[in-house]
Amino acid sequence: MDRIPILTMGEFLLVTIQVDMHDQLAMTLQDDLTNKISKAGSKGVLIDISALDIVDSFIGRMLSNISSMARVLDAVTVVVGMQPAVAITLVELGLEMPGVFTALDVERGMDLLRRHIDSDAPPSADAIDFEE
Amino acid sequence: MDRIPILTMGEFLLVTIQVDMHDQLAMTLQDDLTNKISKAGSKGVLIDISALDIVDSFIGRMLSNISSMARVLDAVTVVVGMQPAVAITLVELGLEMPGVFTALDVERGMDLLRRHIDSDAPPSADAIDFEE
Repeated sequence: MDRIPILTMGEFLLVTIQVDMHDQLAMTLQDDLTNKISKAGSKGVLIDISALDIVDSFIGRMLSNISSMARVLDAVTVVVGMQPAVAITLVELGLEMPGVFTALDVERGMDLLRRHIDSDAPPSADAIDFEE
Repeated sequence: MDRIPILTMGEFLLVTIQVDMHDQLAMTLQDDLTNKISKAGSKGVLIDISALDIVDSFIGRMLSNISSMARVLDAVTVVVGMQPAVAITLVELGLEMPGVFTALDVERGMDLLRRHIDSDAPPSADAIDFEE
């Protein structure tokens, strides 16, 4: 397993993270994703993390980096499928994912992306941006 | 990693296989998938295998089983994203996946599913059904 597959669905890209991320895999995902956004002109990226029982600072930073890179390429990133326990841990540990939007599942994430593209303004209600 | 996530997209389900399948994981996937089909009333299942470099007889049989189970529950299964090398190996080894439909990528797979649901007749052109 040397790369995480990126699925094209219309103007969105979908990534399902199922395995433990390590440095090389995260770098490859960032490379693949930015290449694919610029090649396909995608307007949104959905990252499903429903398979992850743990989101540590490494994963959080990776998601945040991906979101920032996508934004520079004019695409919005939405993280979907976060488990309740992960949400609790994120808040309790004070982990931040600045600029990362979230939705409950893929369908709601797509709705959020569509609303965002239609209005061409960043969605705000779902952004995780904790005050310290 | 004890289960493969199943994403709901409208009336279809999407599964991305990224890890080596073993017996328990395959059983869990079959259980989860059949439960989800019957609960959500899904009409189609998309299985993305673009991350797999090798499809052996175990994976082939699993895909075939899933397809048969889904069909009993009135859902069509389409396997998408097969790598060219995998297609070559499948034919060279004479591995069969009876009743499994294939498409090049997720978007074409969705088109195939929609056409099938509209016509309510099984698609034929894309079926893998080798003569021995």
